[in-house]
Amino acid sequence: MAHKDATLEEVDQALKEAQLAFLSYKNFSGKKKATFLRAIADEIEALGAALVSIAMKETNLPEARIVGERGRTTHHCRMFADLVEEGSWLEARVDTALPNRVPAPKPDLRKMLVPLGPVVVFGAANFPLAYSTAGGDTASALAGGCPVIVKAHPAHAGTSELVAKAIFTAIEKTGMPKGVFQHLYGAGFEVGQALVKNPLTKAVGFTGSLAGGKALFDLANQRPEPIPVFAEMSSINPIILLPETLNRDADKTAATLAGSITLGVGQFCTNPGLILAIEGAGLDQFIKSLGTEIEKAIPSTMLHQGIADNYSKKLKNALAQKGVKVEASASAEGTSAQGRPTVASVSASDFAKNPALAEEVFGPFSLIVRCKDMKELNTVVNYAHGQLTASIIADESEILNYKSLINSLVEKAGRLVINGVPTGVEVVAAQNHGGPFPATTDSRFTAVGTDSIKRFVRPVSFQNFPDTLLPDELKESNPLTIWRLYNGEWRK
Amino acid sequence: MAHKDATLEEVDQALKEAQLAFLSYKNFSGKKKATFLRAIADEIEALGAALVSIAMKETNLPEARIVGERGRTTHHCRMFADLVEEGSWLEARVDTALPNRVPAPKPDLRKMLVPLGPVVVFGAANFPLAYSTAGGDTASALAGGCPVIVKAHPAHAGTSELVAKAIFTAIEKTGMPKGVFQHLYGAGFEVGQALVKNPLTKAVGFTGSLAGGKALFDLANQRPEPIPVFAEMSSINPIILLPETLNRDADKTAATLAGSITLGVGQFCTNPGLILAIEGAGLDQFIKSLGTEIEKAIPSTMLHQGIADNYSKKLKNALAQKGVKVEASASAEGTSAQGRPTVASVSASDFAKNPALAEEVFGPFSLIVRCKDMKELNTVVNYAHGQLTASIIADESEILNYKSLINSLVEKAGRLVINGVPTGVEVVAAQNHGGPFPATTDSRFTAVGTDSIKRFVRPVSFQNFPDTLLPDELKESNPLTIWRLYNGEWRK
Repeated sequence: MAHKDATLEEVDQALKEAQLAFLSYKNFSGKKKATFLRAIADEIEALGAALVSIAMKETNLPEARIVGERGRTTHHCRMFADLVEEGSWLEARVDTALPNRVPAPKPDLRKMLVPLGPVVVFGAANFPLAYSTAGGDTASALAGGCPVIVKAHPAHAGTSELVAKAIFTAIEKTGMPKGVFQHLYGAGFEVGQALVKNPLTKAVGFTGSLAGGKALFDLANQRPEPIPVFAEMSSINPIILLPETLNRDADKTAATLAGSITLGVGQFCTNPGLILAIEGAGLDQFIKSLGTEIEKAIPSTMLHQGIADNYSKKLKNALAQKGVKVEASASAEGTSAQGRPTVASVSASDFAKNPALAEEVFGPFSLIVRCKDMKELNTVVNYAHGQLTASIIADESEILNYKSLINSLVEKAGRLVINGVPTGVEVVAAQNHGGPFPATTDSRFTAVGTDSIKRFVRPVSFQNFPDTLLPDELKESNPLTIWRLYNGEWRK
Repeated sequence: MAHKDATLEEVDQALKEAQLAFLSYKNFSGKKKATFLRAIADEIEALGAALVSIAMKETNLPEARIVGERGRTTHHCRMFADLVEEGSWLEARVDTALPNRVPAPKPDLRKMLVPLGPVVVFGAANFPLAYSTAGGDTASALAGGCPVIVKAHPAHAGTSELVAKAIFTAIEKTGMPKGVFQHLYGAGFEVGQALVKNPLTKAVGFTGSLAGGKALFDLANQRPEPIPVFAEMSSINPIILLPETLNRDADKTAATLAGSITLGVGQFCTNPGLILAIEGAGLDQFIKSLGTEIEKAIPSTMLHQGIADNYSKKLKNALAQKGVKVEASASAEGTSAQGRPTVASVSASDFAKNPALAEEVFGPFSLIVRCKDMKELNTVVNYAHGQLTASIIADESEILNYKSLINSLVEKAGRLVINGVPTGVEVVAAQNHGGPFPATTDSRFTAVGTDSIKRFVRPVSFQNFPDTLLPDELKESNPLTIWRLYNGEWRK
């Protein structure tokens, strides 16, 4: 299937159409946008088996994963539909006038969030549905009132095309302006760069490598008008095994982590790439047991050859670092397109001296850092970069002695997990999928869950507006019955 | 009074102390931070007449203005105290577990906002109290749980020193960690740059010129770990005079605008630097009447000689542009340290052709753009840069015919004002003091009002945490009785 790269003229035209659509779409009510978002979910479901089979073929992911991801995609479309109907996300605030205040009258001020404008979304290699064409970035931007231009990921352009068609059908059926969603191809860097540089583009969503995300971030900041880039890039998601629990539950912990390390051939941004523990019999047993699990693991074909080559190159590099010892690899070597599950270990002192070991190896690999004691473990934690997640495996009674460790981890990660694995990102209001740099370019926003809509909006205040000219959300009678902060009180 | 510039070692030491203070301060309850913020307000008031007199001497601003600004400063400290005690600003969300969900159990997830870390605040030349040492940036960062390092503005270093002393006293009286607030001097660029580049700095607040703000923004984005810079920089705050109302109320409108243009010698970021209107008898009368008011205005001494020199240079440059006609200047020429109120006019076509005319002239100057018709006026609006504010002067009956104009203005400004002047920025929840670039570096945040605290925080999720290890804000029993989104429902 040939998907022709967009020309620079087509990029320009797409932004013009997006801007035109924006001028009406931005004023659509939550109800109207909800109809559109639900229609997208319906049309994706209507694609049926054709979508599943092309996605499987293009990504080498198994059917259950693709079906699950489709469910997650339609779920977030409907979740955002509910959100924009409910309306509290708009952060509506009303402060009424005091015309007789001295020395100066107090004006009437009303504020709410409004959309930024056209948003460019880059399809993600590792989520052909949930973080691509109708993925979380697209759904949250559309919910916020922003038109979206998707650059299809070249590795699953056919899947992207099918989903785009579903969205086009939803546009027609619900009477949305045509330019509210557009779909372009671009296998090289040119199309993506042109999209980010176009003056009509107001924000960018990206999930991928540190090099790719940082390049877009720099490009966007160098524009005459800088714009926000939400790039989710690089995280090795440390797992800390506390000693008492490890001594007792080494085998169980090993089985749980082996499952998380090899899940989806390790191709998750939340893959646990780093395990920290204190030396002793518990850790020895854990490493032995984890080794057994990893040896049994079956190498699977990765998303595309480029990712497999990159895994193999980065793995080789990590294993070649001073003091790194391979603990286990899958017995079956697999093909060059497959990722061979591997675990290695290194001492905390060698780890701390070598920044190369803190880099992400995207695939089914994890590095165990052997620490002499808790002090050394804390040093490794404090030395770590920003992460999407950090996890602690320990009984409640043990963990209560480690409050200061949690206090440090809050500074390092966007989500802290106790007695669980970081893979599996629940799509709910309380989710935070984000974290300090280099996990993302902006730790202040989540890429998953209802609050991800906040990336694509900005506040505007209306001062002394006649009621008829105010958006419905801010009118005195609150006709939409949304939660608002009214003269300092939460009211509906 | 000599204020020695900080050395680079002192900058480094200040950040180390700030980071140390952060590790305890970040966990302080809202109640405890509120005590500190209220003590700051009390101690500033306790400085009494000494503060007023030094600020008047250093800034040339009149007593009433300084007293008013002091009131605004103590008000926002107490406003943030109330905010952090109330707690809804934390955006607490709770999604409880479903352990029996298939195919996978749903974990317990709880999320809230946590502070970013040490914040560097640059004192602003034009607000010696309300946007300097204990200004809005400092108060909101402290409220959010971030230590603050202020670089005093060299033009009012003595005022800054006194306020810093008040904060130091408040620290002692309320038992805060010493490094939670620090105060450095730096007359050149070196200290400011070192503060922004220090790896422990996590955010920056700045109010000043476009060149200064953009330089800090670029510096922060070029760090190995980029950090947010909230720079409020450049805005000419267009005022649109609708024709019917102008025909009727030309003199009244002229009097109102003359007051706003000359207020504080025009040294406000919300100063109305651009007036758009349609040619005709109403506009002629308005220009005549505004001219009379401006001629009567008395030139006053500006904040410092550099600002006066800059005003005079930029004014000269604006008046030298093609098609620009001086309509009136204050009859009294004033000294070289004073800003001479001036208004000029230009045709819309000359304005649109010349980007130099869209640049801010910081001082008591306004440019009237004469438009042939509404179409030409709309073209000028669409061509405009991002602004802090945009205002429309018109009767309600007339303005109802201009909904599409308002629709365009929403894209250009952070606050829209009807029948009022942009100067006078109310410190309330519904305020938005911000706007698209170059008004600020990040249109998604306000610098004034309760929501300005959102600049200095980030979300963190806690997954499967035992209740005892959760922050009080997220504990199941909601011991602080704050508003939370609990399983999709707003509850307290």
